[in-house]
Amino acid sequence: MSIPMCPEQIGSRQTANPKEHGHGRPASVLAIANQKGGVGKTTTAVNLAAGMALGDKRVLLIDFDPQGNATTASGLDKREIRPTAAELLLGEAGIEACIHASHSGDFDILPANGDLTAAEVRLVSRIGREMILRNALQAVRERYDVVIIDCPPALNILTVNALVAARGVIVPMQCEYYSLEGLSALMSTIEQVRDSVNSELAIFGVLRTMYDGRNRLTQDVSQQLETHFGRRLFQTIIPRNVRLAEAPSHGLSALAYDPASTGAQAYVQMAQEVMERMMELAACVAGRPPLGGVSTLDERKAGERG
Amino acid sequence: MSIPMCPEQIGSRQTANPKEHGHGRPASVLAIANQKGGVGKTTTAVNLAAGMALGDKRVLLIDFDPQGNATTASGLDKREIRPTAAELLLGEAGIEACIHASHSGDFDILPANGDLTAAEVRLVSRIGREMILRNALQAVRERYDVVIIDCPPALNILTVNALVAARGVIVPMQCEYYSLEGLSALMSTIEQVRDSVNSELAIFGVLRTMYDGRNRLTQDVSQQLETHFGRRLFQTIIPRNVRLAEAPSHGLSALAYDPASTGAQAYVQMAQEVMERMMELAACVAGRPPLGGVSTLDERKAGERG
Repeated sequence: MSIPMCPEQIGSRQTANPKEHGHGRPASVLAIANQKGGVGKTTTAVNLAAGMALGDKRVLLIDFDPQGNATTASGLDKREIRPTAAELLLGEAGIEACIHASHSGDFDILPANGDLTAAEVRLVSRIGREMILRNALQAVRERYDVVIIDCPPALNILTVNALVAARGVIVPMQCEYYSLEGLSALMSTIEQVRDSVNSELAIFGVLRTMYDGRNRLTQDVSQQLETHFGRRLFQTIIPRNVRLAEAPSHGLSALAYDPASTGAQAYVQMAQEVMERMMELAACVAGRPPLGGVSTLDERKAGERG
Repeated sequence: MSIPMCPEQIGSRQTANPKEHGHGRPASVLAIANQKGGVGKTTTAVNLAAGMALGDKRVLLIDFDPQGNATTASGLDKREIRPTAAELLLGEAGIEACIHASHSGDFDILPANGDLTAAEVRLVSRIGREMILRNALQAVRERYDVVIIDCPPALNILTVNALVAARGVIVPMQCEYYSLEGLSALMSTIEQVRDSVNSELAIFGVLRTMYDGRNRLTQDVSQQLETHFGRRLFQTIIPRNVRLAEAPSHGLSALAYDPASTGAQAYVQMAQEVMERMMELAACVAGRPPLGGVSTLDERKAGERG
């Protein structure tokens, strides 16, 4: 597999005029993608957003799934809220107008709802249809430290927009028998995006979700994933936890709903791991040795070959 | 109209590693586009290629029209020649393999034939389908001074590929009553490409073709075009000339077929005008005042506003 594990220069992509907005480095853009449904993409997106906000990061969460579950989980009424990602994609609203505060107030959310499906259909013959989100983000990237995109469970033009806009991909995976199946389609899509539009795209990490340690099969698959992904795998494992499932119906992240729950705590830890990985990579870029844990791209490649 | 007339930095776009091929500046890429058929796109593409070769430029002509007329006019058998632009678009052949010498030997040709229509259909859902030609050209841009792309008479994905790859657009127009009709569709397409994928794209010039000075209407329309396009218009006017029509059936440019003909002479003059325009623009980039005739972008914009 020729997709590098982590971007070496996460957050270093320059806007046309990086000084225009008066802030520092533009945001790192991370897409949460897996075309399988029910693997914990939205739960990961929302709670990673909340977890990074807890770490004092300025976070924009983008709901790019017509199901609008990240929107609901952020405390917005997806039936009422306008404008959304659909208007953004169709050029009917600027990105600033589409950004709302989450109910808890700790991160911003660019919401979505069923209109996004209609928008996607209308994009079929649009010129530059793959670049819309990337181009739109230029206007606000200086205002955030991280932008997290919740992708739909499909390898469609919405996911491609997210992958073109992103620097890193986080792949949530259930530790189930068939979890590795279909992954090659995602990897092929990432490869195509790298080859054609966004050569900087990389796998930021693979996240084990809905982990049930009492289940022998789960343990076996988890080990399989370790063998398969090595350092691409986050050390943090997200447990199967009822609080993670309950929180969205209250319009809250699990961190806001029940911060002491094992689910919330796991995402706090994962957010920490994401931030560390970003810092290490920034250090690599600055020419200093990595702080440990994540080796440089070349070392990783050598390791993979060996 | 917000499309600038001429690129200020024609030829200055950098490849990932400009030193890789050991040559100087990468080629200027010019697309010959007009979705109207029969306006002289192919005649212009082939004879401009020959004219610039006569001016000691290293020229690559790309036939991007499934009709393959530029291929035939370059002395290649479009039924026999492989691989062509179709294989290039589908990723079945690298660009080097697709480049052939023209029959006259003065320029290179990347041929096309009916397979290109089939290829276009297969591109519909391809990721990065608009960037294929641009990405492919990176590998050979250092070997040429100019790349001329003959577009099909349609605003389809083939033309979009040409516009994404190009820095400047040359629009051939007949001096006929309806010549300005439909131009807004081309301008809108150029605008969309500029807004989404290729912000450097500009109108390089509008060329009057098939001019019959004895026809009063032709004269009137030519004046209309002068009013409408001002300096965007090439001073050179291509006359209606039987040698231009005959040359392709001999697999030759008019310059090779009958260099003394008025048609051939007009294209020699047009090639000269194109080269002067490119030099003036290069001078603008280098901070020196333009040599005259073509003002800087800002001056032009101010002039358009006024």
